[in-house]
Amino acid sequence: MIAVLKNTATKEQISSLISWFENKGLKVNESKGEYCTVLGLIGDTSTIDINLLQGLDIIESVTRVSETFKKANRKFHPEDTVVDVAGVKIGGGNFAVIAGPCSVENEEQIMSAARAVKAAGATILRGGAFKPRTSPYDFQGLHEEGIRLLLEAKKETGLPICSEIMSPEQIPVFEDVDFLQVGARNMQNFDLLKALGKTGKPILLKRGLSATIKELLMSAEYIMSEGNPNVILCERGIRTYETYTRNTFDVSAISVLKQITHLPVVGDPSHATGKANLIKPMSMAAVVSGADALEIEVHCNPEKALSDAAQQLTPAQFTEVMEAIGKARSIL
Amino acid sequence: MIAVLKNTATKEQISSLISWFENKGLKVNESKGEYCTVLGLIGDTSTIDINLLQGLDIIESVTRVSETFKKANRKFHPEDTVVDVAGVKIGGGNFAVIAGPCSVENEEQIMSAARAVKAAGATILRGGAFKPRTSPYDFQGLHEEGIRLLLEAKKETGLPICSEIMSPEQIPVFEDVDFLQVGARNMQNFDLLKALGKTGKPILLKRGLSATIKELLMSAEYIMSEGNPNVILCERGIRTYETYTRNTFDVSAISVLKQITHLPVVGDPSHATGKANLIKPMSMAAVVSGADALEIEVHCNPEKALSDAAQQLTPAQFTEVMEAIGKARSIL
Amino acid sequence: MIAVLKNTATKEQISSLISWFENKGLKVNESKGEYCTVLGLIGDTSTIDINLLQGLDIIESVTRVSETFKKANRKFHPEDTVVDVAGVKIGGGNFAVIAGPCSVENEEQIMSAARAVKAAGATILRGGAFKPRTSPYDFQGLHEEGIRLLLEAKKETGLPICSEIMSPEQIPVFEDVDFLQVGARNMQNFDLLKALGKTGKPILLKRGLSATIKELLMSAEYIMSEGNPNVILCERGIRTYETYTRNTFDVSAISVLKQITHLPVVGDPSHATGKANLIKPMSMAAVVSGADALEIEVHCNPEKALSDAAQQLTPAQFTEVMEAIGKARSIL
Amino acid sequence: MIAVLKNTATKEQISSLISWFENKGLKVNESKGEYCTVLGLIGDTSTIDINLLQGLDIIESVTRVSETFKKANRKFHPEDTVVDVAGVKIGGGNFAVIAGPCSVENEEQIMSAARAVKAAGATILRGGAFKPRTSPYDFQGLHEEGIRLLLEAKKETGLPICSEIMSPEQIPVFEDVDFLQVGARNMQNFDLLKALGKTGKPILLKRGLSATIKELLMSAEYIMSEGNPNVILCERGIRTYETYTRNTFDVSAISVLKQITHLPVVGDPSHATGKANLIKPMSMAAVVSGADALEIEVHCNPEKALSDAAQQLTPAQFTEVMEAIGKARSIL
Repeated sequence: MIAVLKNTATKEQISSLISWFENKGLKVNESKGEYCTVLGLIGDTSTIDINLLQGLDIIESVTRVSETFKKANRKFHPEDTVVDVAGVKIGGGNFAVIAGPCSVENEEQIMSAARAVKAAGATILRGGAFKPRTSPYDFQGLHEEGIRLLLEAKKETGLPICSEIMSPEQIPVFEDVDFLQVGARNMQNFDLLKALGKTGKPILLKRGLSATIKELLMSAEYIMSEGNPNVILCERGIRTYETYTRNTFDVSAISVLKQITHLPVVGDPSHATGKANLIKPMSMAAVVSGADALEIEVHCNPEKALSDAAQQLTPAQFTEVMEAIGKARSIL
Repeated sequence: MIAVLKNTATKEQISSLISWFENKGLKVNESKGEYCTVLGLIGDTSTIDINLLQGLDIIESVTRVSETFKKANRKFHPEDTVVDVAGVKIGGGNFAVIAGPCSVENEEQIMSAARAVKAAGATILRGGAFKPRTSPYDFQGLHEEGIRLLLEAKKETGLPICSEIMSPEQIPVFEDVDFLQVGARNMQNFDLLKALGKTGKPILLKRGLSATIKELLMSAEYIMSEGNPNVILCERGIRTYETYTRNTFDVSAISVLKQITHLPVVGDPSHATGKANLIKPMSMAAVVSGADALEIEVHCNPEKALSDAAQQLTPAQFTEVMEAIGKARSIL
Repeated sequence: MIAVLKNTATKEQISSLISWFENKGLKVNESKGEYCTVLGLIGDTSTIDINLLQGLDIIESVTRVSETFKKANRKFHPEDTVVDVAGVKIGGGNFAVIAGPCSVENEEQIMSAARAVKAAGATILRGGAFKPRTSPYDFQGLHEEGIRLLLEAKKETGLPICSEIMSPEQIPVFEDVDFLQVGARNMQNFDLLKALGKTGKPILLKRGLSATIKELLMSAEYIMSEGNPNVILCERGIRTYETYTRNTFDVSAISVLKQITHLPVVGDPSHATGKANLIKPMSMAAVVSGADALEIEVHCNPEKALSDAAQQLTPAQFTEVMEAIGKARSIL
Repeated sequence: MIAVLKNTATKEQISSLISWFENKGLKVNESKGEYCTVLGLIGDTSTIDINLLQGLDIIESVTRVSETFKKANRKFHPEDTVVDVAGVKIGGGNFAVIAGPCSVENEEQIMSAARAVKAAGATILRGGAFKPRTSPYDFQGLHEEGIRLLLEAKKETGLPICSEIMSPEQIPVFEDVDFLQVGARNMQNFDLLKALGKTGKPILLKRGLSATIKELLMSAEYIMSEGNPNVILCERGIRTYETYTRNTFDVSAISVLKQITHLPVVGDPSHATGKANLIKPMSMAAVVSGADALEIEVHCNPEKALSDAAQQLTPAQFTEVMEAIGKARSIL
């Protein structure tokens, strides 16, 4: 950690600050410049509150040099982590496609979707049972019944299942769910992360709407520091001013994550763009950026007036996307 | 709700969509323009998933016309709500100042802070016992012991106490806490909001780092729709590109909220700016924008090397800020 | 255009507003809902100031339905535009790579760079002679001398040249430059756009740092409405909160642009990411998103201590990127 | 400037980099930590391209310590600058109100507006003659005729006039204009800034839509470094995700600017919020934040159907706002 002091700082203030650092067990390297004094702090600075320092009158700036993410850091763990989701491996060259409807609606819907995505080559089935909605008046999901239907679909198709968990109290309900998703809004619900850290289950951790890559990794640390190494990160679009797409798919974040962490990385073009006609190019873009898996929404309900036009792909469109994904994988 | 259809939409697609709306109990008003067809939907559109509609191929745009927030809406509840926090009223002309340290550290610290803020005119004591931190390796607060110390401080000073709650399981621990704060990161932790909606306690709901005013109000709806009308909203800075301040204090949001909702609104210049030397002008700015209360961090620990320079004000500085607040109130 | 009126609007206010629209030659379609009145405006609404309307007390919201971009709109011009840059075609299936150093520094540097990028397969040479810099104290480029050196490099290699123009007065200096770049900071320098619209030359229009797709298209309209159809759009990264990359490369904007406009689209991974080690994956991502060309910074100065490590690729790295681009193109 | 090197940097790379810095005339202070090496650079680092350094493979991070703004920096010029706009002083305790219509429309309109704002206490008249519009199809202003009408209004009322200039070629047209405004879109139109730096005229420099405070100050440096010290900075709202207001009025930027620069600072609540009913609270908020002046749009055209409801205040509303401003000034 490097603290730059203003040139208005008095000798007394500087030595008082140095003593404070030394009491925290840090070695302090002082260097006086023409306009400022720079303190280099060596040792374990993770106990230093950077916000507190930045608020000091005598401080010009404070920069952390060593990354604060430890367990997720590729520096200390150079090989790729491979997470095993009920037999389906993700990471380290193993590629997976997680597909299915946004929400579980009823038995027929989830069964037909499960069959369709399996036929097209998906390896994990997704479906929401507990839905985080901006409005309390919107549909919140089928809850326990949704999980039960997903397990039915797993029994028939053999596909492992992935569903979103919103609260530590729901953990018992998710006992047989293979892959637990933490949604973007809960990326910093630290009590949930800690509780999931105690389960040992594969966790799909989605980046918050305006979270930085570093904040995403620090949330992964919450899960990992409780003993669960099975964390998979997911880029699902960030909030920007652009309105043609629901969010902006930050594919360079996928490349960056592959460089700085050993954890597998998933791209979710469905939530990132909100448009069915962008899923094919954005799936390919995520693959060439290094994604270890994709999460894609697929719906299959030909009798419903809306289904074939929605943001969710039809099975036929999904099959086309799977072919494009295959081509993109072939050139890496 | 208004749906604009692309001019590529066929007659069959349009009538299929109209039937779908009518099956949901809505009246549909069709209007054909030169370049598009516009459908005006009349009735209760809260069950319509706007994202689903926006994803349809034939849809150009969808706009909600009637606000989706009902219980917080000033249109349906023109008088100001007044929330009673253990005898301290907020809203409807009643102004409060919530002050105290960021975290409860030990008995002496919280006691001296409580006495100091009371002496300067604060009416509610704040202090964090459960701290949401980006890193799992940072100090997470004293937990139950912190709450116990706050209650001690309340006993001595008579000030109602305010502290952040992070999870539904903590509700029993907060039984005697007068005012429960939901932090910015938990603004869309819907399970927490619903659980707090069942308590009836005054809730201080902080705006998320990149949340819109509407999203903040929808989160208030989660609490209110469970039966708890005692919601107080808090503007505490939003994430922007500016780096001189920790966040950007959106004081116009305070004015907007006072216009569109009857709930009381609090300004938090401490978290918004992260700089002690901006608290005085930003407190005044929040007051003239219409704030019903301010939340300000005050620390009082003269023996600690860092205390007098930190982002948290000293009691002496806080006294000065209280005078400025008084002046700003005097001109409204 | 659709105007939604508040339910507080009086009959007189509504009919006064309707008259005002009718005086502007619009047909007005009124539709009364339970909570509001909706006016559909049919005709040429391009003369209506949407900001003025939005500021009216009786207005709830105003939405433009027909796109305000006309000449760039694919609806009215379904076939791809192909721009000819001194014999190199871009768009309509013609792919180009624009490569070269950030700035022209001296004869040897630009000559060796020109030879190197040509050898690796680039089809247009880039180099900055007039540099827009945040600080007036930073290097501003070689100006006329830089242009002269680019023309030398063109003479030797035969590559058309591309360079940034910052002001209408510089147009004579750019007489022999084949491809004029408008930088992100000048995307809304409307006097420059209009002056370039009169030249007929191919223009590379870069998206502003926080500009929307629509604003980029409206700036293209400024050039096109003066009679110059040779506009090529460039996605070069937008400002977000992420700090690992200099900006965020919005590759979905490339796909969206290909859908809604007939103009060619270029991706610039160098400026978007600021990191040499992200150019390869991001070049591929841009290609699979539909880009008609890429702009990549290449430097070639082995004797300089810094050159091989900088954000600018070495010729060897660029050759590798060109291979990856070729592979990505092969699967489309 | 402080450069932190990765622990993968070899000795050769480090000494090569140090030599490069020393060749640029800098003194280099090396400090080895456990995880990294830190180089402190002492001397004039303004010639170092920070982007180039950040792109180096061996660099972890680079931070500028001394501010790059020199002429605008309060450190080197502690007293407030007072700018004299044709007899009206701004800064150093001198407060001004710049008011008038968004655009000059015709003689009667600008004359009545000028009389009205003077009567209410405004000290400078504003009015747009050259209008930067997102669309080329929107009204672009009356141009020379608009300037002529402003000069008429000045002759009658004695108020100095302020109007936006968009291009260096327009400088002759603005010869008799007292106060030249650079709009947000042109904040980094460096050729315009340099040309204005040669005029010596008072310049009102508006912050770009997503510009940082530092970027605004660097643009002021462009004007000042050409010899013109008469720069006044203007906060006019920044782009955020909030949609209730047109932009977000960053009033804490006003307080920050007053601390770090000696230049006068203006707040523009009209453009920042886009809502007439927010002008009063936001004007007061700007004043208590330390603004030296306000710019407010006022329109006065009772015969036009729209005028009384628009974002622009009526003279009666403006008079009320002036009273509120007076009260806010009285408590400082």
